[in-house]
Formats: sequence, C-alpha cells, structure tokens
Amino acid sequence: MSLLRDIGEDALIARLISLVPRDPTPSAGPGDDCAVADYPGDQERVQLLKTDALVCNVHFDSNTSPQQVGWKAVARVVSDFAAMGGRPERFLVTVALPAETELSWAEGLYAGIGEGLRTFGAVLAGGETTRVPTGSAAVISVSATGSVAREKLVLRSTAKAGDVLMVTGRLGGSFAHKHLHFMPRIKEADWLVSNFKPTAMMDLSDGLAKDLPRLAEASGCGFELNFDALPKNEGCCVDRALGDGEDYELLMAVAPERLADLATAWAQAFPHLELTAIGRLVDHGKGISLHGGWDHFAPS
Amino acid sequence: MSLLRDIGEDALIARLISLVPRDPTPSAGPGDDCAVADYPGDQERVQLLKTDALVCNVHFDSNTSPQQVGWKAVARVVSDFAAMGGRPERFLVTVALPAETELSWAEGLYAGIGEGLRTFGAVLAGGETTRVPTGSAAVISVSATGSVAREKLVLRSTAKAGDVLMVTGRLGGSFAHKHLHFMPRIKEADWLVSNFKPTAMMDLSDGLAKDLPRLAEASGCGFELNFDALPKNEGCCVDRALGDGEDYELLMAVAPERLADLATAWAQAFPHLELTAIGRLVDHGKGISLHGGWDHFAPS
Repeated sequence: MSLLRDIGEDALIARLISLVPRDPTPSAGPGDDCAVADYPGDQERVQLLKTDALVCNVHFDSNTSPQQVGWKAVARVVSDFAAMGGRPERFLVTVALPAETELSWAEGLYAGIGEGLRTFGAVLAGGETTRVPTGSAAVISVSATGSVAREKLVLRSTAKAGDVLMVTGRLGGSFAHKHLHFMPRIKEADWLVSNFKPTAMMDLSDGLAKDLPRLAEASGCGFELNFDALPKNEGCCVDRALGDGEDYELLMAVAPERLADLATAWAQAFPHLELTAIGRLVDHGKGISLHGGWDHFAPS
Repeated sequence: MSLLRDIGEDALIARLISLVPRDPTPSAGPGDDCAVADYPGDQERVQLLKTDALVCNVHFDSNTSPQQVGWKAVARVVSDFAAMGGRPERFLVTVALPAETELSWAEGLYAGIGEGLRTFGAVLAGGETTRVPTGSAAVISVSATGSVAREKLVLRSTAKAGDVLMVTGRLGGSFAHKHLHFMPRIKEADWLVSNFKPTAMMDLSDGLAKDLPRLAEASGCGFELNFDALPKNEGCCVDRALGDGEDYELLMAVAPERLADLATAWAQAFPHLELTAIGRLVDHGKGISLHGGWDHFAPS
C-alpha cells in the first residue's frame, strides 16, 4: 500500500493527470506556471488559467495575520501570471474554514485578498465558502483567469542549450523575511517580455533546486550552475538559496547574444533590483543534478 | 467575538465580498450560479466561471468511493454551468490531502474526475496538489471555465412577478439515493435555452427552501408555492423535498403564456423526466417565506 508521502509531488501529479482528459492544444495544460487557452474569435491574445492553495499549518500558521495570508494567496497566483508574461484579471476564491473561526479572521483574510486584487488590477468574480470539520486546517484555494498578448507569452519549454540562466533579486531565507508580503515580479516580467523576451521563464516558488530542473526538463535540456554567482539573501548559504523556496523571483533563459544589451537596459529600468546570470542550459543528459527544494509529498 | 457559525453562510458571503473589488460588468460577479465575463473580440459568446469544493466529513465521508467523490466534484460544477444555459470547458482541480492518504485513493479520485470530464466534454487544464496536516480533512476544490452563446445566457435575476416557477425531476432524499452519482441537467438546460428560454434559472443544490428565495430575491420578487404540487422523491415529505438539498435539479421561471407549449414540447423531448409547475413569482414583499435548507455556517 503506497501513501502519498512515499512517492513525491512531481511523481504524484504525473500519475494523477494520466487519468484525466487534457487539453489537446500543445501550449496548454498542466506543467507550466499557468495553463494557456485560446479565446474564441481573438488571435492576438491568449487566456491564462491558474489555481493555487494555502493551507493552515503548512503555508502559514494560525498566528499569522489573516491580511497577510490573503495577500499571499493572491500574490502567489499573480507571480505565476508574471512568469508567463501576462496579467491576472478575474479571481475565484474558495475558503474552507472551521465553523469556530472568528468572523474577524475571515474578514481580515478578505481585506488582504482585496488589497492584493486592487494592487494588481484584478477583481473577485466568484467564490465558495464551506465548512471544514472542527480541528481541520483552513484551506484557501485561489483560481484566476488572466491574459497575455500571444507574441509576449513565455513558456518553460522553449529554451535551448546555450541559453544563459538568470534570476531576479536574491534567493533564500524567504520564510524569515518576506514570504507573507512579497511583491510578485509582474512589472519586471512585463518589461522583459516587451523588450527582451526570454526564451523561457518561470517563477521560483519551490526553490531553485526544485524549479530549475523543471524548466530545463521542460525545454529538453540539462543545466550548469555557477554556485559562486548565486545571489543570496543576507545570512543564507548556497544550500538555503537553492532549497528554502518561496522566493517568488523570476528564473529565465536568455539567448547569450542578448545578454549585454539586457544587462544595460535592466540596470536603467530597475536600478534597485539585481538580475544575475547564474549558469546556462546545456544538452539534455549533460550538466549537473540538484537535490532539495520544497516537496509537499516528499519521499521519506 | 463572532464566529462563522453565528452568522450563517449568506450573511458571511455578503460581508466578505464587500471587502474586495468586483467586476463592474452588471451581469458578472458573485451571486449567480456562475460568474459571467466578456471575451475580448467576441460579442456572440460569453465566458462562464465557477468554483466549488468538497470537504471530507462534510460533503462525503471517508468510506465513500473516491471515484464517486471525483464524479461529484465535477458534476456539481457542471450543474452550475447548466443553470446558466452553458457548458463547461476547462477545469482546474486542487486537492489538499494528508500525506498519509493512500495513493490508490487519490488515483480513484482522479479516475472519477476523468470520467466526469469525459462525460461532459471538458478537459483538465491545470491544478494543484498540496498537503494538509495529519488528521485534517481532505479538501477538493474545483474551478472551471465554460461558455454560452450570449442570447442563450440565463441569469437568476431576470424573472418578473407573474412568471411560473417550475422544477425538473423530483426533490428530497438525495443523500440516500443519488448525491454521489447524479446526472447534471445539462442536456435539458441546453434544450430549454434553445427552445423555451426561461426568464430565470438556477440549479437546486442547497434545497428549494434555501435556493428559491435566492432566485426570487435576485429578481426582485416574492413567491408563492403550491406545496401539494411539489414533486417529491419516494419516501420524502414536503419538508424533506424543501430542505434536504443536493437535488441538482433545475429551478426556473417561465412566462405564463408559454407554459402550455413548453409542457407539450418537454413531454416529447424528455418523456422520462418530469417538469412540474410548483408556484409563481409575485411582487416583492408579497408571497410566503421559507425556512430550512443547507447552510454551511448555520446560525445556532
């Protein structure tokens, strides 16, 4: 008898999605930061779809300010839209709470959700409230639609060997200093896809050690890392920069011939945010392996 | 200090959504079976958005077949698309499960989800798996996009006094005989909006006693009921037909002058499914009140 904790999250997802019909459109479906869907009658834009969840005592603890939980629930989803070059539009919010929850907690949660929606120009389109049994963890599940101009859409799967790997900001230590009030890189992503469209991009939520192999694999590549170049938050060693997770920075692949121009233009556009070359993609089967990062159902 | 169980679900939702920005489009937003959104560059169709959740030991118990839970998770959402005259397209499924869950349970759940998606011509576009703490209830949160031709879209809010209230099928007793394998009325709804478009429609999920006042209120009406006419499932009294919930039948308002033609055409199209006139809408402030039905956060 296998349990979920015996097989790991990526293997679990692979098994589960093999059981359901999926979108035949090549650019859509599970595996990227958002799903991509064509609009009827509009060739210029595509729709983006994303769902994400926060669980009490997994993603936040019961002493966390509900406003910060609400902000984080929205910001995590916005970060995924940023990773595709797009922007969020309409949110559906499901809250599953014990009936003993204080009304003021639920109102604080929605105040934080509201702040997030206003900040990113999105609206609440619908939702669901339901009870969980007494003693069960609260679950906040957030789904959203968004869109991006087709020519600006960036996937994980379109980089190639030789592309330079870059990250925004600094990595590691998120749980100590920012995971509840981080700012998704939506402005920076929009600038990137408008001016120096990366060959691939994703947001870093589970840690570089978990997420970089996903981008490389999706693009059919291996990778090399310059560990000395990793931009680390204060007090973080390389292992923590790789494995802590919840960085919500952008990881991207850039054609090497564009690197110099990008570095110059970036420094002018975002003088207070680092953009760092940390390695490169190589042929599949070559390069290095990484271990660590965040796994909800980690093998024991 | 107020708790969620002190105020009831409808009052809770009203307080929470007052805290967040909402869609300015009149026909969209919280309150109907689905949210409605315009497509860019397409005037002929509108997009429908819906989210719904199932919680272990609230909506199903731990002995329930996971295939049936998966089917129900999809079918509940499909029933909401039917209520608007539309059809579902792309699903996002979030499962929040204890790490001690058996892999076979999760696979059974997705087998049921897959059966539902295939039955209704929809696909899985994305999702999320996350852990809940040991001992916490499993939560399955399902969001979906769909669409409907603008001219076929039916809301809750567009009926008027004098319209006849009708329901499909029979009410009450769902937990004993069908709630885990019910068939959403999507075929019947499509026929209705194509041939005898109701002035308003919704699906019955919380019981007629809870749902009918919602339709009437949304349309700015009161209502009268002919209790003797209520189509009851075998073994159900009037109270159970009103209050059991989970009927997943269609409640609709029909202009009285179309009633005779509708009854004749319906009997030919769906000879094995009853369509019953149960009352009528009246001016706001007149008619009767109903009590009962399903409330996740019922006042004590």
